[in-house]
Amino acid sequence: MRIRKKPWAEAELASNKAIVASPAQNKGKWKEFFGSGDPIHIEIGCGKGRFITDMSRLNTDINYIGIEREEQIIVTALKKSRLAESGDNIAFICADAGCLEDIFAPGEVERIYINFCDPWHRKKKWAKRRLTHKNFLSVYERLFGANGGEIFMKTDNRILFEFSLNEIADRGWRLHNISLDLHNSDFKDNVMTEYEEKFSSQGMPIYRLEAYFNKLPKGEK
Amino acid sequence: MRIRKKPWAEAELASNKAIVASPAQNKGKWKEFFGSGDPIHIEIGCGKGRFITDMSRLNTDINYIGIEREEQIIVTALKKSRLAESGDNIAFICADAGCLEDIFAPGEVERIYINFCDPWHRKKKWAKRRLTHKNFLSVYERLFGANGGEIFMKTDNRILFEFSLNEIADRGWRLHNISLDLHNSDFKDNVMTEYEEKFSSQGMPIYRLEAYFNKLPKGEK
Repeated sequence: MRIRKKPWAEAELASNKAIVASPAQNKGKWKEFFGSGDPIHIEIGCGKGRFITDMSRLNTDINYIGIEREEQIIVTALKKSRLAESGDNIAFICADAGCLEDIFAPGEVERIYINFCDPWHRKKKWAKRRLTHKNFLSVYERLFGANGGEIFMKTDNRILFEFSLNEIADRGWRLHNISLDLHNSDFKDNVMTEYEEKFSSQGMPIYRLEAYFNKLPKGEK
Repeated sequence: MRIRKKPWAEAELASNKAIVASPAQNKGKWKEFFGSGDPIHIEIGCGKGRFITDMSRLNTDINYIGIEREEQIIVTALKKSRLAESGDNIAFICADAGCLEDIFAPGEVERIYINFCDPWHRKKKWAKRRLTHKNFLSVYERLFGANGGEIFMKTDNRILFEFSLNEIADRGWRLHNISLDLHNSDFKDNVMTEYEEKFSSQGMPIYRLEAYFNKLPKGEK
């Protein structure tokens, strides 16, 4: 995808307080940054920000951080969040997923959302780039720390979803609430992304899973 | 499905030595029955028997038991197995899946195949009849005994497959080798059932999973 440069991008980046310019400086201090001990949920690849903005408004007792590597995309998320008059429980970081451990200390993140990430499905050797590759899972394990944590993932890509199920299962995490057609399931309170609305309206099935590391889903034993 | 009565069925049942007329009498004694200590793999709902007959010829170091509740269907499996000149490592039982614990003692079964079982998907209250309902899983756990065991499952029914993934995951079993489109995957050495050949040739995706209780897949840790 070619990303068109937005003339208002620089002004948004300069004036919007939700963007964290030097996120590595907050490593180990994100609770101080938010001024609350509420759990921190991050979205890797937040895109234009609809999902995380909506989530932050629905769940004011959670602190959200949207991470997106494309500056020209995250500015749209920033603008959207500002226009939605989001509270103080949301922040954005322009960074690559490969830098997560520079930004967060072990135990700082409780939940990771991975929504419609790049499936990297055309070449087998690209599998390592998938956000659910075992190398990424081992990073997430360290971010979750001793108390464990969870991934909530959605995709429209069958190959990525199958790959993710296997990577997660083979690492011994606990899978839960697996959906092979989310929009024709009993799942309630689904918050949609921009991408999800477009593709599900075309009748494409949306896959979803929850995966728990070192902890169990609520109500399970 | 209406099952047509076969005029040759009674003769096949009376003369074929592979059918076990009183299986409960072998409970705890299946190794003696087979005259070997080889592992016992069973197929619940073996239908016309192609899968288990082929498996028994490919793996002569495994003892196979095909279980099917419809007498007019299992006679076809018996005939097929006889015509294929199957060895002594295959037997058939005409019984309902609800009777498994009358037939096998704890630890007697190492692997269970569930191929294209009835999805019971039209009514929610029918979920208990599905062979991957948690009540059945708890039966399988007892059949596997202390050394654990595994289920290998195939289906063309998305709803049943999704249900099975969740039931198995929520019981804390280890999932492995999950396929959302078996015939377009890297999976090798797939042995097909009659039903599978028919439906996959129509382009319908076949779903497959392995699930391990109290043990790990080979090569996993």
